[in-house]
Amino acid sequence: MPDFTLEQKAALLSGEDFWSTKAIAGVPSMLLVDGPHGLRLQDADTDHLGIHDSRPATCFPTAAAVGSSWDAGVAAEIGAAIGREARAAGVTVNLGPGVNIKRSPLCGRNFEYYSEDPLLSGTLGAAHVRGLQSEGVGASVKHFAANNQETDRMSISADVDERTLREIYFPAFEKVVTEAHPATVMCSYNRVNGVYASQNRWLLTDILRDEWGFDGVVVSDWGAVNDRVAALRAGLDLEMPGTGGVTDAEIVQAVQRGELDEAVVDRSLQRVLALTERVTPATGTLDVEAHHALAKRLATECAVLLKNERDTLPIAPEASVAVIGEFAVEARFQGGGSSHVNPTRVDTALDAIRALGTSVTHASGLDDNAVEIAREADVTVLFAGLKEIDESEGYDRDTIALPDGQIDLIRRVAAVSSRTVVVLSHGGVVSLEGWHDDVDAILDGWLLGQASGSALADLLYGIANPSGHLAETIPLRLQDNPSYLNFPGEQGHVRYGEGVMVGYRYYETAEVGVRYPFGHGLSYTTFETNDLSVTVTGDDTATVSVTVTNTGPIAGKHVIQVYVATGAGPVRRPARELRAFTKVELAPGETRAVDLALERRAFAYYDVELARWVVAPGEYTVQIGHSAADIVAEAPITLTGDTITRVLSLDSPVQDWFGHPVVGPLITHKITESMGAEQAKQAGEAQDWLRMVASLPMKQFTHFLTSGGAHLPDDALSELIELSKN
Amino acid sequence: MPDFTLEQKAALLSGEDFWSTKAIAGVPSMLLVDGPHGLRLQDADTDHLGIHDSRPATCFPTAAAVGSSWDAGVAAEIGAAIGREARAAGVTVNLGPGVNIKRSPLCGRNFEYYSEDPLLSGTLGAAHVRGLQSEGVGASVKHFAANNQETDRMSISADVDERTLREIYFPAFEKVVTEAHPATVMCSYNRVNGVYASQNRWLLTDILRDEWGFDGVVVSDWGAVNDRVAALRAGLDLEMPGTGGVTDAEIVQAVQRGELDEAVVDRSLQRVLALTERVTPATGTLDVEAHHALAKRLATECAVLLKNERDTLPIAPEASVAVIGEFAVEARFQGGGSSHVNPTRVDTALDAIRALGTSVTHASGLDDNAVEIAREADVTVLFAGLKEIDESEGYDRDTIALPDGQIDLIRRVAAVSSRTVVVLSHGGVVSLEGWHDDVDAILDGWLLGQASGSALADLLYGIANPSGHLAETIPLRLQDNPSYLNFPGEQGHVRYGEGVMVGYRYYETAEVGVRYPFGHGLSYTTFETNDLSVTVTGDDTATVSVTVTNTGPIAGKHVIQVYVATGAGPVRRPARELRAFTKVELAPGETRAVDLALERRAFAYYDVELARWVVAPGEYTVQIGHSAADIVAEAPITLTGDTITRVLSLDSPVQDWFGHPVVGPLITHKITESMGAEQAKQAGEAQDWLRMVASLPMKQFTHFLTSGGAHLPDDALSELIELSKN
Repeated sequence: MPDFTLEQKAALLSGEDFWSTKAIAGVPSMLLVDGPHGLRLQDADTDHLGIHDSRPATCFPTAAAVGSSWDAGVAAEIGAAIGREARAAGVTVNLGPGVNIKRSPLCGRNFEYYSEDPLLSGTLGAAHVRGLQSEGVGASVKHFAANNQETDRMSISADVDERTLREIYFPAFEKVVTEAHPATVMCSYNRVNGVYASQNRWLLTDILRDEWGFDGVVVSDWGAVNDRVAALRAGLDLEMPGTGGVTDAEIVQAVQRGELDEAVVDRSLQRVLALTERVTPATGTLDVEAHHALAKRLATECAVLLKNERDTLPIAPEASVAVIGEFAVEARFQGGGSSHVNPTRVDTALDAIRALGTSVTHASGLDDNAVEIAREADVTVLFAGLKEIDESEGYDRDTIALPDGQIDLIRRVAAVSSRTVVVLSHGGVVSLEGWHDDVDAILDGWLLGQASGSALADLLYGIANPSGHLAETIPLRLQDNPSYLNFPGEQGHVRYGEGVMVGYRYYETAEVGVRYPFGHGLSYTTFETNDLSVTVTGDDTATVSVTVTNTGPIAGKHVIQVYVATGAGPVRRPARELRAFTKVELAPGETRAVDLALERRAFAYYDVELARWVVAPGEYTVQIGHSAADIVAEAPITLTGDTITRVLSLDSPVQDWFGHPVVGPLITHKITESMGAEQAKQAGEAQDWLRMVASLPMKQFTHFLTSGGAHLPDDALSELIELSKN
Repeated sequence: MPDFTLEQKAALLSGEDFWSTKAIAGVPSMLLVDGPHGLRLQDADTDHLGIHDSRPATCFPTAAAVGSSWDAGVAAEIGAAIGREARAAGVTVNLGPGVNIKRSPLCGRNFEYYSEDPLLSGTLGAAHVRGLQSEGVGASVKHFAANNQETDRMSISADVDERTLREIYFPAFEKVVTEAHPATVMCSYNRVNGVYASQNRWLLTDILRDEWGFDGVVVSDWGAVNDRVAALRAGLDLEMPGTGGVTDAEIVQAVQRGELDEAVVDRSLQRVLALTERVTPATGTLDVEAHHALAKRLATECAVLLKNERDTLPIAPEASVAVIGEFAVEARFQGGGSSHVNPTRVDTALDAIRALGTSVTHASGLDDNAVEIAREADVTVLFAGLKEIDESEGYDRDTIALPDGQIDLIRRVAAVSSRTVVVLSHGGVVSLEGWHDDVDAILDGWLLGQASGSALADLLYGIANPSGHLAETIPLRLQDNPSYLNFPGEQGHVRYGEGVMVGYRYYETAEVGVRYPFGHGLSYTTFETNDLSVTVTGDDTATVSVTVTNTGPIAGKHVIQVYVATGAGPVRRPARELRAFTKVELAPGETRAVDLALERRAFAYYDVELARWVVAPGEYTVQIGHSAADIVAEAPITLTGDTITRVLSLDSPVQDWFGHPVVGPLITHKITESMGAEQAKQAGEAQDWLRMVASLPMKQFTHFLTSGGAHLPDDALSELIELSKN
């Protein structure tokens, strides 16, 4: 390391301003700018507060849409494209992807996250990072951890038990970190079990570095640092934005006062210096046209065809079409907040439909003209959804309903239209209740990026075949969501009362009906799954083999969803959990054999007593689903699992002692031996009573015995404890 | 205090044997025996393990039944009667009542508890204690606290947030302690947030004694002491049963080693000595006949008429009646475990019905004879429910379904019967699904005690008019219960994830349909509620006035249920909460005006930040319900509430600063002042952005301002903080 002064070291650990780090003693400044679905590069000299339009960049489909692609390739292509744009602009780190779990449909930032499922989130996040970093730009996987709401996000404590963190909220981060090696990890604003993520040593060091082997830079979310010295000590390297030197001075003072070991400063500095060495000089230029075309192609992979009755879609080119809704001319394609991109161009659906159809009329829906044109048309396509102001970083929604006016419009239009198609644009889940049964088809676009309009037109006319699947359950009612009564918490705390039962894990386990389940998505062709077989290996891993066939008339993409169901182990298991998936393209009539690997982790639960992942011995069912609620094939397997030695102690309950294969018979004998004949007879008759005391620790049980006139000497127990160790 | 040796003091703080304390140096031995719905006095010389029949005693209706009476008078009469029996037997303390909240319908011991509602539980528990202690016998309110399951009850940690403890799991204990002054409180086996109740100083001293003013003896549940010295220090006075001197010696050693202040021993000893002074010498004799008659009268107050279509009930004396089911001849009237009473006699329903009806046949239901006699009869009365082995202290159920065989029998019988009545006997809730719609009437007896059979017959024939109401929701499905996925926990912990949303609080708030709601209960007459008015006083209390009229043809008892609904305050409030109730008897045509008081607490929530009860200023609705789901009258009121001064600090979020009536305008001015014209213009346009940073603590916001070129000096902030204090 060069010969920095303490002041220089400290200064290198925070921003120069909003987006840049300091250039000191030959260390280059780095530029960190917002993502994750496009570049948000602001001109520092004109827009200090960072609230105005940034330089034009391609707005790709948002994470909510990418989640619905179920396609790591889509995420990787977006990452790489953003990487090229970043490199062209001299950007060092692009702040994404966001892999937080969609705990509640109300979270204002859900559009920036992939899914309610950790495997889907982690797989897509890792692909995005690989793509981005393949262009020499650093990623920043965020927001670590348990940042699942915007309400009070700067101070709220996410109160979550460890099993839930390990099984639901950590795995996407773990997968990204261990498989894609992001340059940085961004800590979140919130507290986790009372401790700010920014100064949570367990999170930032024990888990992230020691367990997962992360060797990059931990950067604060913008303004997330509460106590600079505590944060540094916990493992937070780089504070952003800069604080005008205030917190740099705190670091210097803490070292000078002996409160902070300078080695801690050096360690973070080394990580930051290593990051600066990754800096790629600005190269290349932004190919606006090519990236727009890419944005369009990728968008077609993301939209989800929820419903398609009477073969309403695709629309025949010769059909007369009434296009209704403001979103047809003012595309809704991204969300508000730090991820907001100033797009290079925007396709509107109306223009794109006019380019494909022969007879197209349009009404905004703000007057009754909509009903008039719907009455005349063969097909009515109504664009509905949420406005940008309805959902954003910084605040949560309080409803999942569409605005009343839209529901009313849909119903009035559907009442007169021959065929009605609703196209949805929104970041968080919207309810389909009140109108779902009135319409023939629903195409859910989520937020598809700047080419949203032309991509939707291609899907509506069958130029592209829908292949998206829900990455998030669409419930019947907001009240059905398992976080409903605990979201967004109160008085500084949000209780994750539902534990691991998030999203479909809850709906399937508690058998709560939904409108459309996780994993649901239609196509213009049909697929069949056959020949499921599962091969188990000795180390509790397995290979799943299936054949899939395109049984319909056109080419299409099919997602193979592999779930595992089990009741094994001492913890409550969800009814099923997604453990592998892949998307395959099939020509009409084509059959393909596909193998998917199930690692140990696919069967494991996190054991908080043993503080590790455990595969419980027992029965498991491997299931292939068209969704989490629609299992089309399944195969039972038996796993050897882990051998857990539970040594007896005086705190072990009576049932463990009597149930122990070696100790059980011995202790029964010893107790009976110590009793009189009448007592032994009573005890023999007291099986109900024994069931009652089954959970009594041996320590207390001996007192019961003593006061009952029986006897079990301490040395006998010590002897039996020794025996239980074998 | 007499001059005891340390050894004597320690010895006086634990049992001599299972049920007695030691007689030492003139201190008399005390006899503590199980309750709570009858006396369970075992002969010490013949039954050391305590598993055989105790001396005969009257078995009164269990708490589950008493809960359904909604009548403090019933609880008080039972308490007094048990007190007389205890006094006759020389018993010092009768171990009851149990006022734990029915969190899950699966808890094996629910039959020993009153309700899912704390007010109902506390009111009945306090009445029981008053009755019992009026006879000179000490009560032991139990099991303190958060003992809501039997699974792993010796070790499980109930992980519950403080608001939930304060609002749901504590109030029944608080009411009993503060209003009825029980001689003893029994600590529970389980841990509360990781700390054994038996050694939980916060529970046993801070809350129980310092806040509630308890001055009696804290006794351990039998075998609940884990660490004797820690327990003593926490406030547990008397350990039961005795440990053969083992733990007495631990106390002595701890004092001798200087690890325990002898004053702590003295303090507990004084409490125990004070209790011995309450000992009433054995007086009186058990009047078997009078108490049996009492048990019968009280039982008629408890049964709940759930359904009564086509005026099927009451049965006309001249009707031919088919009586079906084993429980008609082998009455099911109490639960298993420590509360099991050896009854002085048992009435069977068949005998009692035969005494009332003119034409009665019977079939056990074990063969098809049941269908034959049902086909012939005018009315079929089928006795169903759970066997004693199905539910007990010591273990939980895993289903709420009736046994398949019973459901099948009910359906086959109902298919051929003119009119079908089902009478239920069970301790915990049973599901009515699969047969509810097949039958005409359902009379739910819960566990009515030894006179169950004759009481049920009186109700069936209209000699008594049903007046019970559900103290616990009957859900449609077990899965609908809010504790479903968290019960009974795993790996040593049970998460109370539903928080305060227990029972009807959940069903009403999440709008989950139920079979029969909390508070539901029919009568053979009808009642009308009119003239609701609510008078609010200055200190946020209120008086509710209504008139109730018996609009039917016969005398009956009506329960006036007063609920309060509000959205006021910073915490999530249940849709409504029971805040007052009373039961009134009305002759046919009689109208009565009834006043009910609503104390401050009826409107308050527990504020964990302020660590006290707070009445939030705002709107409240006082509701009169025929059940928690059936509101028949309501009146809005406005409460002044408590004035909460929230002083600003650097940790306060931006929204609190800008929203402060005095500080808000000043800080806006100061910031604008420090900006250039262009910056000020930008900020003025950035209202969306301001919404995004609303939750940012001022400390971080100042950094944002600084890095954005604006400025807010520290002394300006200090000045504004001072202003916020006024």
